[in-house]
Amino acid sequence: MKALVYLGPNKNALEDRPKPVITAATDAIVRMTRTTICGTDLHILKGDVPTCVPGRILGHEGVGVIDAVGAGVSSFKPGDAVLISCISSCGTCVYCRKLMYSHCTTGGWILGNKIDGTQAQFVRIPHADTSLYPIPSGADEDALVMLSDILPTGFECGVLNGKVSPGSSVAIVGAGPIGLAALLTAQFFAPSEIIAIDLDDNRLDVAKRFGATSTINSTDGRAHEKVMELTGNRGVDTAIEAVGIPATFELCEQIVAPGGVIANIGVHGTQVALHLERLWDRNITITTRLVDTASTPVLLNIVRSHKIDPTLLITHRFKLDKILEAYETFGHAADTRALKVIIEVA
Amino acid sequence: MKALVYLGPNKNALEDRPKPVITAATDAIVRMTRTTICGTDLHILKGDVPTCVPGRILGHEGVGVIDAVGAGVSSFKPGDAVLISCISSCGTCVYCRKLMYSHCTTGGWILGNKIDGTQAQFVRIPHADTSLYPIPSGADEDALVMLSDILPTGFECGVLNGKVSPGSSVAIVGAGPIGLAALLTAQFFAPSEIIAIDLDDNRLDVAKRFGATSTINSTDGRAHEKVMELTGNRGVDTAIEAVGIPATFELCEQIVAPGGVIANIGVHGTQVALHLERLWDRNITITTRLVDTASTPVLLNIVRSHKIDPTLLITHRFKLDKILEAYETFGHAADTRALKVIIEVA
Amino acid sequence: MKALVYLGPNKNALEDRPKPVITAATDAIVRMTRTTICGTDLHILKGDVPTCVPGRILGHEGVGVIDAVGAGVSSFKPGDAVLISCISSCGTCVYCRKLMYSHCTTGGWILGNKIDGTQAQFVRIPHADTSLYPIPSGADEDALVMLSDILPTGFECGVLNGKVSPGSSVAIVGAGPIGLAALLTAQFFAPSEIIAIDLDDNRLDVAKRFGATSTINSTDGRAHEKVMELTGNRGVDTAIEAVGIPATFELCEQIVAPGGVIANIGVHGTQVALHLERLWDRNITITTRLVDTASTPVLLNIVRSHKIDPTLLITHRFKLDKILEAYETFGHAADTRALKVIIEVA
Amino acid sequence: MKALVYLGPNKNALEDRPKPVITAATDAIVRMTRTTICGTDLHILKGDVPTCVPGRILGHEGVGVIDAVGAGVSSFKPGDAVLISCISSCGTCVYCRKLMYSHCTTGGWILGNKIDGTQAQFVRIPHADTSLYPIPSGADEDALVMLSDILPTGFECGVLNGKVSPGSSVAIVGAGPIGLAALLTAQFFAPSEIIAIDLDDNRLDVAKRFGATSTINSTDGRAHEKVMELTGNRGVDTAIEAVGIPATFELCEQIVAPGGVIANIGVHGTQVALHLERLWDRNITITTRLVDTASTPVLLNIVRSHKIDPTLLITHRFKLDKILEAYETFGHAADTRALKVIIEVA
Repeated sequence: MKALVYLGPNKNALEDRPKPVITAATDAIVRMTRTTICGTDLHILKGDVPTCVPGRILGHEGVGVIDAVGAGVSSFKPGDAVLISCISSCGTCVYCRKLMYSHCTTGGWILGNKIDGTQAQFVRIPHADTSLYPIPSGADEDALVMLSDILPTGFECGVLNGKVSPGSSVAIVGAGPIGLAALLTAQFFAPSEIIAIDLDDNRLDVAKRFGATSTINSTDGRAHEKVMELTGNRGVDTAIEAVGIPATFELCEQIVAPGGVIANIGVHGTQVALHLERLWDRNITITTRLVDTASTPVLLNIVRSHKIDPTLLITHRFKLDKILEAYETFGHAADTRALKVIIEVA
Repeated sequence: MKALVYLGPNKNALEDRPKPVITAATDAIVRMTRTTICGTDLHILKGDVPTCVPGRILGHEGVGVIDAVGAGVSSFKPGDAVLISCISSCGTCVYCRKLMYSHCTTGGWILGNKIDGTQAQFVRIPHADTSLYPIPSGADEDALVMLSDILPTGFECGVLNGKVSPGSSVAIVGAGPIGLAALLTAQFFAPSEIIAIDLDDNRLDVAKRFGATSTINSTDGRAHEKVMELTGNRGVDTAIEAVGIPATFELCEQIVAPGGVIANIGVHGTQVALHLERLWDRNITITTRLVDTASTPVLLNIVRSHKIDPTLLITHRFKLDKILEAYETFGHAADTRALKVIIEVA
Repeated sequence: MKALVYLGPNKNALEDRPKPVITAATDAIVRMTRTTICGTDLHILKGDVPTCVPGRILGHEGVGVIDAVGAGVSSFKPGDAVLISCISSCGTCVYCRKLMYSHCTTGGWILGNKIDGTQAQFVRIPHADTSLYPIPSGADEDALVMLSDILPTGFECGVLNGKVSPGSSVAIVGAGPIGLAALLTAQFFAPSEIIAIDLDDNRLDVAKRFGATSTINSTDGRAHEKVMELTGNRGVDTAIEAVGIPATFELCEQIVAPGGVIANIGVHGTQVALHLERLWDRNITITTRLVDTASTPVLLNIVRSHKIDPTLLITHRFKLDKILEAYETFGHAADTRALKVIIEVA
Repeated sequence: MKALVYLGPNKNALEDRPKPVITAATDAIVRMTRTTICGTDLHILKGDVPTCVPGRILGHEGVGVIDAVGAGVSSFKPGDAVLISCISSCGTCVYCRKLMYSHCTTGGWILGNKIDGTQAQFVRIPHADTSLYPIPSGADEDALVMLSDILPTGFECGVLNGKVSPGSSVAIVGAGPIGLAALLTAQFFAPSEIIAIDLDDNRLDVAKRFGATSTINSTDGRAHEKVMELTGNRGVDTAIEAVGIPATFELCEQIVAPGGVIANIGVHGTQVALHLERLWDRNITITTRLVDTASTPVLLNIVRSHKIDPTLLITHRFKLDKILEAYETFGHAADTRALKVIIEVA
């Protein structure tokens, strides 16, 4: 089969690889129909993810059709249409029993990282019963690809952790795909104010269209003051960090109101300065989270009821045999204005 | 009247001062019967608290008897025995309506800081209806002095923020008075394991007597490994920081389990390094809080039902005219083994 | 001044009454600009509310302007525009400190019940600091009248108690003004499905316009089956009772899903049959609540941000001197299709 | 093998039955070492549980050793000591993903009800990975038998649903084994007051020994007044119904304080009168629940740390071949003073 293979820093290729086979009773083999590329795939390509070794098929998102199941799989049979969660979960370990699937002792984020992933014609999914979701008939597959990772990440790590609530104020620092996913899902809780902050006016325009009530271009280093002006000098109830660098996290520290929450989504490569000398008495909360995809059933319900349109996030489409071109487009988002790209496998 | 007055860095004195008078309809004047000294009073003496200017009467804890009330006070009358909260709250502002009294726009921690405090024969209490509590008849006044600040601080900032729960594991970093208050109140939630960590073996012995299931002397810099050994290499569900320096906060970062909470109580004077490069995907929560004393009614109930004995925290007693000696004793706790000192005013 | 006075069962009249005066330091006198009539006022008129005696000025909703304040009032001064909460709260008692203002030991629902109310040119408001809210400048006064009672009632008793959440299913039994208020505010939480149930097709049409995803006319006694058809035979996550009779409460018992909530809003005059023989093992929750108006600050924020338009609930307008006509119109809602009527006082 | 078999109303017998075999990949066969008898087993014997048909081996509690596992079982292997949950759960269905295992679509309470149970030398456990728990080495097996059903039932349905909290007041109506289990586990949350109510002075004596702060013999019909006297006429924050008849549920309605919770544990055979005409405005919550055993990992931790001693509940011991005698003893608890009886299988 065709598969996008990581070959080491800055090298990947579309190769021919053997079709995967069932190796445990709880495995399923899925024939992919749609997949996509994640910012994390770009991190891997830079060589920043040591758990992902050369030779690995990349990708942890997508939808497809069950091709085969192991003896221990009870919820799925060949021919069933399924959504693949980016997080594999056994449903049994101490973490899964707390719905913290991200830390499953035999799962977590392994697809396209520690085991072969979804940017291929077929993929083996471990713990299939608890790592796949049946797709409603007639569903929009493009929309559902957004439910593998980006929407639950924005929703769980940003919106739920950030305790967005009716009438509250929210700032989203970073209006890339993940910040925009937080922006879309924050609106499930009717905040009064959503301020999007970014360096790129194009992304801020998109944020405005997606429901931001104000936008701030932070190029001039005055984002802090502008947020204070917009909030009567109080700061925001929820500050969502969707970039992953010290400057943006520290901006969140500056703009969070007493009693508020900083919900980190960003993947950080270095420590940040936590100004406890200012924050120790401010009654704030800081959260971190690798997405658990515990909210997938809820998100499936919401997409089915048309409360949001996840396809808003999709800017480009490619066939699997053009996936290298898709990586180029996605990897130069500032120029191409790419948000999410759909890879059609079949 | 006699009052302990802050005269500038490293200078305080017991002076004669005029008895305070009602200045607002919602004020009460309280004749003090018992007060105590807080670690914060030592910070003020070092000159570390700029809001507290020379000439200020110190102290924000204590019990007493109502001497006079303003026209707008409805819950108290002269002769009523009362507990004084270290936090003054109007009950009306946006923060008070969220029970975040610490950030009351006209209150908060003002006693013995921005206005004259309780280490005196009389004190003026603003917003009396919501800043004083009636004392149950026949109550142990020494025990109740511990409810002005130290017990609600340990309970709210450490235990409640730290989400201590039945069967969970807790580490308390710092076994001074405030860490011990967290230790006593953590047991309201039946955690399976409470690990006390300190540099001082005497304090660790006290912690053991107060209910710690293990103790670690961190002098050798190996506290992190020892916590991991004690917790099957998982870390603790709740790490309570009760010191206020970078080293202890970073220890909390090292020992918190995935899904766990770091609850900061310490008063920090400098920034700390937050290792998001390790923590971004660990699903942890960090909280800060200035005590709100919103839990005072609950703590009064618990003390009344003898579920804890707050007088365990009291090691020394002095008359008001020996309060400078009390400061000496409390300020050299490593030598004197002082925890809390009671000042008898009447 | 002019005032609508209850004179005993089925008798009320617009009378001349003396302007109220400050009787406690915490009182304010408000000059009314807008008020409205509540279903509860009709209950009083029927003689069903024994705490309301003949001679009482009715009304517990409205907006106005501060005319005078007592010495203990700190948040308001003459000339300030204010929203009146239907619940008076001292902010100090054991219930107020839990934000359960409805059970304030010296307040609660007293306006137009135990003391004179708002259907008059002036009204005395006890505990003014915690029972009035400043009105944002330039606000739509008609919209704000809906925040005195009906919107917080639907939101707190129905939506918050009912734990409406993203992707969940909700049934609202009773599409009168209060059911419609629940319907409007339920949408703050993005449920996937909102089923409105009533006997009146007109009200169901209104419900549809207000956001119901399905409607059921329950005249044929088959509402239970229809809900089961709409929910894949599971029932609803939240069943909101907005009528107040045994039949509608028992319908809620039939349609609530395992793990779901029945949130009662209705004012009941008689016991209902609770079918514990079917429900004991269904993991359900039943809640009751007199509105606390603790959510008023949140609702003010939301109205200000135009997330909902409360004026949708307003069908008729009258001047104060036509208030008897307004009662006629509101009392015959089936014919007049009245929802809420605005009484213009000034 | 030997097994206690239900043969129809009022008939059961110790019979020879074939040893069970693996029928699904996710099954395990457990060799029993300890089991016990539940009040529900007596209900079955009376013919009150239609899902349990003659020929069924009874029992849903116990500990044992893994004898064999299916191909899909990954957490256990032959020889492992295990605790059996009374609730079987697939870990995958919509209810299991909400930790509401009691409503698992292919599990729930099936052992000794819809499939053969644990009062036998061997039992087949479906969904073994999520329905069994590893037993800590050297554990007290008698204590652990109490974790199959009775302790999680008291804890989840009574204490957790009842929101027992530090300093709160609790009444437990019914001091049989399940009420006593609620009493033991309520103390994990340090309530100030626990009032036990029963008709039997012996059970009330036991309740006192187990930690009740007051007891009321309700034979004279004055329990309501006595609770009001004990609570300053406020009622209790949590009323736990542990009997299952209308009189005791209605007592809970009378004694619950405004803002309080009625947590039902009792198995009810008939409807009860819910006095909404008194309760509609009291801000109360009523909960029902079939135990989910979602708290088993927590309870295992607590038992391991010796915070409670579940063997306090054990009054009698029998060998398996005397199990009919055990049923006699347990079935005449008023005379025999039996609480829980241990059946030693091996």
